[in-house]
Amino acid sequence: MAGAVNLDDAFDRFDELWAPRVVARVNDHEVRIAKVEGDHAWHVHHDTDEFFLCLAGRFSIELRDRTVDLGPGDAFTVPQGVEHFPHAEPGTRILRFEPAGTATTGDEHGDISHLRTTHGLDLD
Amino acid sequence: MAGAVNLDDAFDRFDELWAPRVVARVNDHEVRIAKVEGDHAWHVHHDTDEFFLCLAGRFSIELRDRTVDLGPGDAFTVPQGVEHFPHAEPGTRILRFEPAGTATTGDEHGDISHLRTTHGLDLD
Repeated sequence: MAGAVNLDDAFDRFDELWAPRVVARVNDHEVRIAKVEGDHAWHVHHDTDEFFLCLAGRFSIELRDRTVDLGPGDAFTVPQGVEHFPHAEPGTRILRFEPAGTATTGDEHGDISHLRTTHGLDLD
Repeated sequence: MAGAVNLDDAFDRFDELWAPRVVARVNDHEVRIAKVEGDHAWHVHHDTDEFFLCLAGRFSIELRDRTVDLGPGDAFTVPQGVEHFPHAEPGTRILRFEPAGTATTGDEHGDISHLRTTHGLDLD
């Protein structure tokens, strides 16, 4: 059985932006943390919801009809099939809950030439 | 689609101990928050893992062979089938991920005469 993980300690172990690290597994889902800053990309997950909790900074989730702004302690679930474009201020940290294997850039996406697509990286 | 939820605001909306409130849904799982204090009860979930993140206070999860102590920012998953007995200091707040419908006292349990069994309550 995996031991306890301190989120601040886990954040100290990586610097890559928009590249979530898996800190816990829960059934077929994962708890992932990420450092984020600037613009991600329009994308959509056809088969899964995606839960976001802002831990620090400001995280905004642009939807086609509105933008959801999250500060520390704010949580929001993007339902499956809903296109979204995440943006973040420098120093933003988020926690996510989504199925193992979920790609960071979704099943369809816009320009991701500035991003690396990952599927939940292990902590080193 | 549900809106964003601030966890501090959500905690202000209930006082009952050991009675998790659902703040978000993610596929077939729920994000629940709870105020906890004192002793819960020995119990086991045969069919699901249970993820705990301590947000404030001290939360300890007694297992049959050791105790896992969580402070703010510490996270731990109790694997399915593992008996556990949660305890908490006054003022402790936790966040949990687990499947919708999961009973707070598990599938088998010890003395729960001091507890109300719930399955994830809605915020009022």
